[in-house]
Order: sequence, then structure tokens, then C-alpha cells
Amino acid sequence: MTGPKAQRRIVVVGGLAAGPSAAVKAVRVNPRASVTMFEATETVSYGICESPYAISGLIGDESALMPYTPERLREEKGIDVRTLHRVEKILPSKHIVVVRDLRRQTLVETAYDALIIATGSSPRALQVKGEEARNVFHLSSRQDTLDIMHYIASEKPAQAVIVGGGYIGMEMSDALRTKGLDVTLVHRHRLPLAGLEDRTREAILEELDRNGVHFVTNASVSALPVGKDGRVTHVATNRGTFGADIVILALGVEPNVALAKSAKVRLGPTGAIATDERQQTNIDGIYAAGDCSEVRSAVTGLPVYLPLATIASRAGWVAGENAAGGRARMKGAIRAAAVQIFALEVAQVGVSADEARRAKYAVVTETISCWTKVKSMPGSAKMSVTLIADQKSKRLLGANVFGGPGSVLRANTLGVAIQQRLAVEDVARFDMIYAPQFAPLWDPLLVAANQLLKKL
Amino acid sequence: MTGPKAQRRIVVVGGLAAGPSAAVKAVRVNPRASVTMFEATETVSYGICESPYAISGLIGDESALMPYTPERLREEKGIDVRTLHRVEKILPSKHIVVVRDLRRQTLVETAYDALIIATGSSPRALQVKGEEARNVFHLSSRQDTLDIMHYIASEKPAQAVIVGGGYIGMEMSDALRTKGLDVTLVHRHRLPLAGLEDRTREAILEELDRNGVHFVTNASVSALPVGKDGRVTHVATNRGTFGADIVILALGVEPNVALAKSAKVRLGPTGAIATDERQQTNIDGIYAAGDCSEVRSAVTGLPVYLPLATIASRAGWVAGENAAGGRARMKGAIRAAAVQIFALEVAQVGVSADEARRAKYAVVTETISCWTKVKSMPGSAKMSVTLIADQKSKRLLGANVFGGPGSVLRANTLGVAIQQRLAVEDVARFDMIYAPQFAPLWDPLLVAANQLLKKL
Repeated sequence: MTGPKAQRRIVVVGGLAAGPSAAVKAVRVNPRASVTMFEATETVSYGICESPYAISGLIGDESALMPYTPERLREEKGIDVRTLHRVEKILPSKHIVVVRDLRRQTLVETAYDALIIATGSSPRALQVKGEEARNVFHLSSRQDTLDIMHYIASEKPAQAVIVGGGYIGMEMSDALRTKGLDVTLVHRHRLPLAGLEDRTREAILEELDRNGVHFVTNASVSALPVGKDGRVTHVATNRGTFGADIVILALGVEPNVALAKSAKVRLGPTGAIATDERQQTNIDGIYAAGDCSEVRSAVTGLPVYLPLATIASRAGWVAGENAAGGRARMKGAIRAAAVQIFALEVAQVGVSADEARRAKYAVVTETISCWTKVKSMPGSAKMSVTLIADQKSKRLLGANVFGGPGSVLRANTLGVAIQQRLAVEDVARFDMIYAPQFAPLWDPLLVAANQLLKKL
Repeated sequence: MTGPKAQRRIVVVGGLAAGPSAAVKAVRVNPRASVTMFEATETVSYGICESPYAISGLIGDESALMPYTPERLREEKGIDVRTLHRVEKILPSKHIVVVRDLRRQTLVETAYDALIIATGSSPRALQVKGEEARNVFHLSSRQDTLDIMHYIASEKPAQAVIVGGGYIGMEMSDALRTKGLDVTLVHRHRLPLAGLEDRTREAILEELDRNGVHFVTNASVSALPVGKDGRVTHVATNRGTFGADIVILALGVEPNVALAKSAKVRLGPTGAIATDERQQTNIDGIYAAGDCSEVRSAVTGLPVYLPLATIASRAGWVAGENAAGGRARMKGAIRAAAVQIFALEVAQVGVSADEARRAKYAVVTETISCWTKVKSMPGSAKMSVTLIADQKSKRLLGANVFGGPGSVLRANTLGVAIQQRLAVEDVARFDMIYAPQFAPLWDPLLVAANQLLKKL
């Protein structure tokens, strides 16, 4: 560190989620800091999780996915935002980053007192020839979103093949069915959404079926044959060949760590950047946050890779505050994720039973099915709750919920219990709302916890 | 205690909510116990909170409000249910209750080893002449529900006056407007729902106005003039006189403690029966649970009166288990209540700012307004969150939420934070679900907690 706190130069690498979060926080904590944020694309602060809804048309205006333009971050927050600038090298001993200006194709050096690496993640490649064809898309940037929207509008594809049955695969199945396409979903396992419990996954499969999504199980793509017009014509798998006017690859993400590695920033056991609770890496003055880095699990206390926008924002705050001279700590994190698949609400919080077993917990689970409201009220729907607990500590470790309206919002209450390391008995004794339009006398969460309690 | 655990005779006084809950739990804990439940009316286990929806017609079949008939409790649970039996005396030294059989008008004595008082609450009387007229109703029993339904169906009243602007007043306003009646709501304060924060109450008042409920502020009823046909013709107040074909009195409830008092069972500072954490009263072997008794506040640790069906059931369990020879403890309780007033969802959890001030907390509050989902998603609605915290301990003490769909279910997550005595900072660091159909990147609860944090 060279200057006093007030004159600190903070450089942020990456402008999608954790980067802007860190930059905004740094300026707020230390208004005299000079904060520069480099972003290789043209877009900062993009709501990529909202892209499927822009593609389906549910969100009518795609530009709503950009809460901040570079100009707004500059004018309202005082952050020196440089889009189309790619950081190519970090020189930790000199406290310098080497940056390529992609417009002018020049290299510039920028000095920093504190550096925040927020390089995010990239979509996993299929590594099959044809992947670069012009009707094959990933969905990980504004450009991808616009490309897919444009391709559907101009080329009017009739048949879509989605490869990958995770969250994005689910959302894109729904989006493309909404757009009127035939959808085939090619997945490497028997059931979609590998991180969820089997009962949840079965329900999702049924919902896909019910809505005309052709789900191909235990399939791996062997070829993406490209026609004369430069487009993939079909998707060949070990389970058959499927005609495709458009192909969406949704194989998950991996952390962007090349830049960090080249600067000898240490990676953790998950392959993402390791940090301490202050989001500082092994190198003094270099922080990391977001999809490029690990966080500590509130369940196991171990490093985990949770590429979620919420955690990126929170970790970004911590990195930004500490880079600016503050003393923030990152609280242990849980996975808290949800998706609507046609009419089915699905959420997971905490760890899965498999993850818990791998972490050596004595896993006990319970699944119940209940009404979301007083049964005789209009709009009352069935929902299912699966709880995952540890026989030894009696703690709640994870949960799945699925069902009709009102399922997902309930999952947050379980998420809090997990993040706060509460016992199942605590959950069973929650005072929850009973009101006919909202919940029965015994909320489904209480029913589930009380049933599970009998096994502990 | 006379016999060994297995042969224990357990008597439960009252069959509405806590009583059945206690009886069922006692039998489950100790299958060889003999459990007798006396209930003065014909009905046990009635969902009185659902009555407004049976009256409005939203619930089409009123009998759905009875999850258990006496026969079912007898056959499936092995409980000796005696309806139309009123317990008139407890003789603690003899371990005997004196019971009037209201069919035969005979008195019988029943011996007990453990006694559970679950005598519930009664609607507060207006104490104005005319209160007993045949078009004036309380709403606290199945008979009341049926009487109101029958009166509306047969007499087709056009003008209703509701006295009391609490939860039942709100629900009945909505129900009677749904049935097409003109509704005047006479309330003693400027705003409805005295236990909520002013901003919430203003929003409710606006929603009542918007839906044609004539809300009369700061009004007290001076007379209920009765016409020649034995019906109240209008409601006279200090703020004007209002024509009435039907009058609903919704003035809150008070605990039924006469029986307990006559047996020298001690009452607490709230006027309800005092118990320890095991739900035992000052008299060994006599337990109390439900609306007749106090509970310990999870916020303040002090005795409070929270006549809620959820707490009654939970306290009933504890009383039942302990009466059967178990060792259950009642966890501290919070108020968790919600109501839908026309299109407005409203919930409160924990204490109000006023209650917190009276309990000597250094109260800090914050109110924010946010979208329930990603703003550009269809169905996203505005919601408001008010948090109430203690400057000294930094704990969250209470919250109000109101707004569109998705407001109320969020309140449970805050309720858990309050019941678990979490700090506002813990809430600000919750990992909550971000998914466009369900919540924005920063859930309204997180926005509220982070804003409040700036004041602490």
C-alpha cells in the first residue's frame, strides 16, 4: 500500500456482478478513493439471470436487464468505468495491471493500491466440432441474449435442442416453448437438475413432459453436423439424433481464473480463487469476489463454489469495503436458488443429501406433501418439502421445495434456518403465519420439520 | 399423581384449538393414558379463523372448517370426547372436575391425574343495550358463523355496520363487500389495526376506501336502537348514526379464566393464566394452553397474551406431552399474523415499535418500498417493509410488510429472524433467492435490512 487511505487507487477487474458491487461499495466506504473498473465487453452490470425471460418475451424490454450503464456508474457513483478494456496481466510486485484497450488495440499500465478480481465465469464448452456454428448459442452475456433473440426473430427456428438439464436448461425450455418452438432437451443424467433430490427431479421431469419438452436421458452429444449454410442441422447423441434449427448449450459454468493464476493468486480446492473471510487472496492487497472465487459454506464451513449473483454481490461488497480500507467479513453462504418450470415452482436451499453425505454427515431426510393454503381456499395448491438433516448435530442442512404458487417464497425461511445453523427442532417450533389465503394452520414447513423430528 | 405413567388419567377442558392439540399429543406420547376432553358446545376443533371466508363464500363448504369431528377424535385418536359438557368446577386438592352434562342437565365428577385448561377466549362485549338483538353478531364459534351465514341468506341485509377495526373487522369488511353489502366500519382510533405501524395502517385505510368500505374514525358506539321486530335499526356513535341491517361486533377477545380463577390457578400480568415453560400453572398437575393463557415472548422474554391458533396448537402440544409424563418445553413465541384486505396483503411479525418502546428498547425503524419480483416481470408488485430494531443490541424486534402478492409469505422469514433473536446485520447477510419470477437480485427484506443497518 503506498498512499494513505484517502488517496487509495482501487482497480476492479470485471464489470458484470461482483465488480460493480465492489466498486460501488468502495466509493461509498471511502469517497476519496479513485476506483477504476475494467470490463472486456461493452456491457456492465447485466441481469443475465433474466435473459431467458427477455428471450421468451415475458420481459418486453431487454434493456431493462441493465440496471446500470457505464455512464450512470460514472456519473452517479463516481466510478471510472472502462468498457472494452481487458486486463491481460497483473504484476503484483509492482502493483500494476496491464490492460488492453480493445477499441484502439493499445496496451496501458494502471497502478493500484488494491485490486479486486471479479472476472466471473464462462459457460462450459461442449468440445465438439460445430460448437461455433452460427445457430449454436451459449447464454452468458448480453451479446448471447441479443444473438438468440435476433436469431429467433429473423430465422424463425422451429426445432430447438438444448444441451444440459440444469437451471438454464430449464429456463430455456420454458422460454423456447413459450416462443412456440419444439424443444428437445439432451441431458447426461436420467433426471434433470443434478443438485436436487430425486423426488424433486421426477416432478420436474413430469412437468417438462406435460409441457411437450422432449427430455432425452443419459445422453451425451457426439456430433454437431454443420450444413452448407454454416448451421448445425441436428444434434447427434448416443441416444439418437435430433433435428435442430437452433442449439442452446447450457452445460454450467467454470470460474475464469487464468488471469489470477498467471499472477500466482492461489486457487482453492474447487478450482476457483481462494480467499479469506475478507475476500483477500493469498496476495496482500489483491481481493477476489463473484463467480471467479470460492466462498465458505455456512453448512460445512468448507470452501464451495456457488456461482450465484446474490453471493457475487455480497462478496463484492466485502471485497470493495476492504479494498477501500474497511473491515468487512463475508458471512458463510448457502446455495439459495429457484426456478419456475412452466407451472411448477422449484427451490433448493443449502446442500443436497448427496453433498451432505460426501461431507460425512449422518444424513436423514423427510419429504412431505401439503397444501399451500387452507385446503378449501381458492388457489390452494399442493407443495412438497424435502428436508435434509444431520442425525448427529440435529441441524437442518438443506431443503427442496416444489409445487404450486407459494412454494418458492417459503424456501427462504428454510434457507435462513440453514444459514443460521438451526436445528430441525428450532424449525418445528417456528411461529409461522396462519391465515387462510396464505397458509394452513400448520405451514408445510412446520409439517415437514415435525415429521423429520420423529426420525432424529 | 396417583397411578404410574401408563395409567394416567388426563382431562382436557375445552375442545377448540389447544384442547384437541393437547389431547392428541398426550395420547401419542403415552398411548395407555386415558384422555377425556370436555367441550361445552357441540363442535370441536373448529377453524374459526376461516369463518370470514365461509361467510364470503370463498370457502364453499362450511363443514370444511371442522378438520375433526368428535367421532373422528374418538375413533382415530382414542380420545374420549364429550361435547355439550361444561366443566363448572375444579377441585385441585381432590384431583376432580365437576362437569355439567348440558343435554341431560346433570352434574358428574371426573377424577384426573393431570388437567389441561384450554378454555380459550371470548369476544369482548360492547356493553351497550341492543347487543343481544337478533341481527347483532360476534364471530367466535361455529354457531356464530352459521348464524351470520343464515341471516345473510334469509334476510338479505343491504347495510352492514362492523364495530372494531382489528383483524376480524378487516376480514369481515372484505367478506361482506364480497357478498354485496354496504359496509360501514366503526373504529375507536384514527386508523385500523392498532398493533401495526402507522404507514401500514394508512395503506390499509386507503385499501378499505378504494373498496367502498366507509371507515368511521375515532368513533365509539353510544346506542344500538332496536326496532319493533327485535332488530337493531342503526348504530349510533359520537361520529354519527349509521343505518344497519346487520351488525358485527369485532372488538377483540379476552381470555376465559373464570374456571381457573375459581380453582386458585394464578393469572399473570396480562390477565391470562400464567404458566411455566412446561405450560404448568402454579398448581402441580394443572396445565394451561391456548387463548386462556399467556406465553413467553421470544422478543422480550416477558409474559404476553397472543391469542393465535398457531401458538395455541404449539402450547397445546407442550401441555399434552407434559401431562402425559413427557418433558416438553414451550419455546418463546412471537406474534405472526397476516390478513388479505381486498388486494392488499398485510403481515406483522414480532412486536410493534410502540410495544418495543414500552419494553424500554431504543427503537430504530426503517421503511422501504420495493418490487416483489424483478420489476420488469409480469406480476411484479410494490411491497413495503418496515423493520423495528433495538439500537443497543442491534436485534430485529418486529416487522410489518404490506403490498401485492408475495408480501405476506416473506414475513415468515423475518419472523424466524425475530424468534431466533438475530441481529439486523444477520438479516442483511441472508442468502435469499434471486429468480426473476420470485424476487429481484436484492430481495425487499435485504434492502430493508441494509437500509436499517445504516442507522444502527
